[in-house]
Amino acid sequence: MVVRGAPAIGVAAAYGLSIAAFGYQGKSLKELVRITQDAAAILKASRPTAVNLVWAVDEALRRIRSENAADAESFKSATIRIAHELYDEDIQTNRAIGAAAAELFAEQTTVIHHCNTGSIATVDYGTALGAIRIASESGKSVFVYVDETRPRLQGAKLTRWELQQFNIPHQLIVDGASGHVMRSRKVDFCIVGCDRVAANGDVANKIGTYNLAVVAQKNNVPFYVAAPLSTIDLKTISGAEIEIEERPDAEVTSVDGHSIAPTGTAVYNPAFDVTPGDLISGFITERGIVRPPFTANLAKLMEKSR
Amino acid sequence: MVVRGAPAIGVAAAYGLSIAAFGYQGKSLKELVRITQDAAAILKASRPTAVNLVWAVDEALRRIRSENAADAESFKSATIRIAHELYDEDIQTNRAIGAAAAELFAEQTTVIHHCNTGSIATVDYGTALGAIRIASESGKSVFVYVDETRPRLQGAKLTRWELQQFNIPHQLIVDGASGHVMRSRKVDFCIVGCDRVAANGDVANKIGTYNLAVVAQKNNVPFYVAAPLSTIDLKTISGAEIEIEERPDAEVTSVDGHSIAPTGTAVYNPAFDVTPGDLISGFITERGIVRPPFTANLAKLMEKSR
Repeated sequence: MVVRGAPAIGVAAAYGLSIAAFGYQGKSLKELVRITQDAAAILKASRPTAVNLVWAVDEALRRIRSENAADAESFKSATIRIAHELYDEDIQTNRAIGAAAAELFAEQTTVIHHCNTGSIATVDYGTALGAIRIASESGKSVFVYVDETRPRLQGAKLTRWELQQFNIPHQLIVDGASGHVMRSRKVDFCIVGCDRVAANGDVANKIGTYNLAVVAQKNNVPFYVAAPLSTIDLKTISGAEIEIEERPDAEVTSVDGHSIAPTGTAVYNPAFDVTPGDLISGFITERGIVRPPFTANLAKLMEKSR
Repeated sequence: MVVRGAPAIGVAAAYGLSIAAFGYQGKSLKELVRITQDAAAILKASRPTAVNLVWAVDEALRRIRSENAADAESFKSATIRIAHELYDEDIQTNRAIGAAAAELFAEQTTVIHHCNTGSIATVDYGTALGAIRIASESGKSVFVYVDETRPRLQGAKLTRWELQQFNIPHQLIVDGASGHVMRSRKVDFCIVGCDRVAANGDVANKIGTYNLAVVAQKNNVPFYVAAPLSTIDLKTISGAEIEIEERPDAEVTSVDGHSIAPTGTAVYNPAFDVTPGDLISGFITERGIVRPPFTANLAKLMEKSR
């Protein structure tokens, strides 16, 4: 959790491969490849829910291999060059997501945002928050209700901070208040990021996303998911297959080390939930907005992007 | 907020009337009545959303008047006697709610509970939590998922503590996790208290109740509201008429004085929300469970109880 945000985790893992490679002091290319592959396996297993991690590690390995390094030294330099490439591409991806999202933002737009999907969850700009930032930079007036996003308060701590930096008007709300906001104030749409999109459009994202999506549907508020292609995993047929990471009780029973419930309190702390595709209005990708039916349209998108 | 929980607030206000009366040192019955009425007005205006407060103060005044005290001393002693009466009646009410709820609890029952509705929100036992406690005391196995209930964490701090005292198995969850729990585990019903029930069955209750009710409906999980007759306000036609108290930003930006977002953070902090009656399976009252259609059946209930 030192690195968080699915895209940031992916790029960090690519640098992790490079660090592992540079840690090898010998001359054997074969041994170096093995070390790098072992590191890849460890990195891929470090967080279960987000697919960018697996995607980024596999993509980095694929590109490193395709360089056909002649010796250990050139293999090492390939690893760092490829990590830099993925770093740059993440920024380009986020800018393209922001461009694709532009059509959703009217001159005056109010949104609800969950978790953190900004420049500190990615390399820069961010996915959902990047789209908000790019709309604001283009001169549109955007107001953001910021779900605080318990337990780790990514909304209160990170998203609010980023919105302040960019002078984007906002109000922080507790997660349970989103429905009251939708019922009592104008909300144009909800926008979130994601950790994995299944072939049928089911989405794994930060815990609380599903509740927000259900409440949005009930209130006829569109629900958009900003999803770089690296989060779309056609090998996952539906959300039912996605492993949900459970995290330590202390995330719920304390805030920054300040205890709010005694040690030994029984806790259930799933870090993510699955939002069925039928609650989602569209996926904002670097190749444009994908609308239902998702099974067909996500497959078409990924086919084109090969 | 030193006294919280709609029934506890009501009974405390009845004692408040008595304190005001005993504060008068003169002999004039007329002046004492005026002082008590002034105190009633102040007490009734101290919290806007819960109707028990208004009910309890008006009911106490009505009973005090019906004693036809001959002088100031006997008026004073009437105020304390009536407060004790309301105190005892609140316990009886909660036991009767628990008895009415018994039919909802199978031998093994799992529920989700929001906020705190237990012995520390009432005089004793509690409404929704009283029903859980009475079911458990009757030998049924009850498991409770405890919504932590941001911002003031009544679930994490009070409900969890009460469940521990009564050895009722439970797990604490963040409010955003309730949907994931309903999707991934067996939940028999949700059960909450309320601050006011309108004539059409709309309910004002702790912020987050509406989200929970919407998610419950989506998952075909019944949603019950424990509602003493004192919370049913037929003069309120619908939830749209209920004033929602907004509370200080600091409730959201800090936890027990520990800051989680900087001073000056823009916050929207409604303390309650309104859950439309069509999301509610039934009201558990001291006269039994009231089911839809609520406009007719709540009117019938209140007619009978006159």
